Amino acid sequence: MKKVHRFIIETDLGTSLEIHDAQLLDQWAKVLKFKVGEEIELCDGRGKEATYHIVSLKKSGVTLERVGAIRKNQAESKVHATLYAAVLKKDLLELVMQKATECGVSEIVPLVTDRTVKKSVKLERLREIAKEAAEQSGRGKAPNIHEPLSVKAALAHAKMNAANYFFHVGDGKSEIFKGAKKEGVRIGLFIGPEGGWSDEEATSATAAGMITASLGPRVLIGETASIIAAFLAN
Amino acid sequence: MKKVHRFIIETDLGTSLEIHDAQLLDQWAKVLKFKVGEEIELCDGRGKEATYHIVSLKKSGVTLERVGAIRKNQAESKVHATLYAAVLKKDLLELVMQKATECGVSEIVPLVTDRTVKKSVKLERLREIAKEAAEQSGRGKAPNIHEPLSVKAALAHAKMNAANYFFHVGDGKSEIFKGAKKEGVRIGLFIGPEGGWSDEEATSATAAGMITASLGPRVLIGETASIIAAFLAN
Repeated sequence: MKKVHRFIIETDLGTSLEIHDAQLLDQWAKVLKFKVGEEIELCDGRGKEATYHIVSLKKSGVTLERVGAIRKNQAESKVHATLYAAVLKKDLLELVMQKATECGVSEIVPLVTDRTVKKSVKLERLREIAKEAAEQSGRGKAPNIHEPLSVKAALAHAKMNAANYFFHVGDGKSEIFKGAKKEGVRIGLFIGPEGGWSDEEATSATAAGMITASLGPRVLIGETASIIAAFLAN
Repeated sequence: MKKVHRFIIETDLGTSLEIHDAQLLDQWAKVLKFKVGEEIELCDGRGKEATYHIVSLKKSGVTLERVGAIRKNQAESKVHATLYAAVLKKDLLELVMQKATECGVSEIVPLVTDRTVKKSVKLERLREIAKEAAEQSGRGKAPNIHEPLSVKAALAHAKMNAANYFFHVGDGKSEIFKGAKKEGVRIGLFIGPEGGWSDEEATSATAAGMITASLGPRVLIGETASIIAAFLAN
């Protein structure tokens, strides 16, 4: 089974394309060792994709020709879900970026909560991981990864969502998203830090009209809760 | 919020307990720095649990006294799910052990498939990870981690399950477990390797009466599929 590599690049999907992006050329030539004739899939980052083959590959640029018609990407979620997830240790936060993207979220907002230990993130790296995960999972676009926000700022941001779910340890795996997942609807998912939400945070989430939700009788640690909530919401 | 540490140890939950296990004593004294008076939760690995406090802590042993009554653990799944997952790179396989345990699986069988690259596992390490995840997620027992099996042997093992799901990339997120999750029912989940199942494997799974299932329109890589399937099945 030959794997077809996919790339999300913001370009119109013409019948012939010239690629000059140095980083991409480097990856294609040196890491993936593409040769003339290689078939790849390109997405325009706006929901369209097409197959191309390489007709020439030089240090100065790559020339591609489209094979067949432009298609509509089928893997984007009909829901616009934003994951507001407490910042975790570097490797776990990177895991969340990768997996939540695979699971279909449209936006990720790292949260600095009252009990968040680590507060800074490497945004460029997180965006790269999310973009790669989007490409590999067959998505048409990479999720939007935000700068970290305080819980207060995130609650304000979340006002644009039709429904926001505030995940809290509890029992009973409720059918949390039943009926909420309509075409184009905005959903917010709030996942706390290892030490849990503070009482003040829980109070302000309730005051903001959020729906308190649980992922069942077992305690899922932060990154697991983010991954599962992301899957269920999309 | 003070975290209460939980331990699954195979012992009867008497009113007073003596612990002499050297590894456990080492962890309690040196890693967790427990002192006299510390409250901990013990599970007997058979579905019961109780709170204890430390009344004496010496190199030779720890004496515990029970606080309150013995309780029934509430976090075990009513379903008996077995995850048959293709062996992955060490860190990813460890991730699956941890997350699938949090999500409630009862057994994990590492699979050596036609396209499995890595074929050996460190069973003791995997069992430790699963036990720790069971303790932290509030479960009453650790899942049973098997020696790796070939797909053929796993298909034979899976005959004892009431239903087996063979996960394959496809579109449409079907309500795969609807109606199947009855009290005590045995469910099998087959997750393939990075390169996918071989045609022969797919054919033999179908011949064995397995239900071909999909986790939706996005391609979930091996470890993600294992985590999501484990959550959905329990």
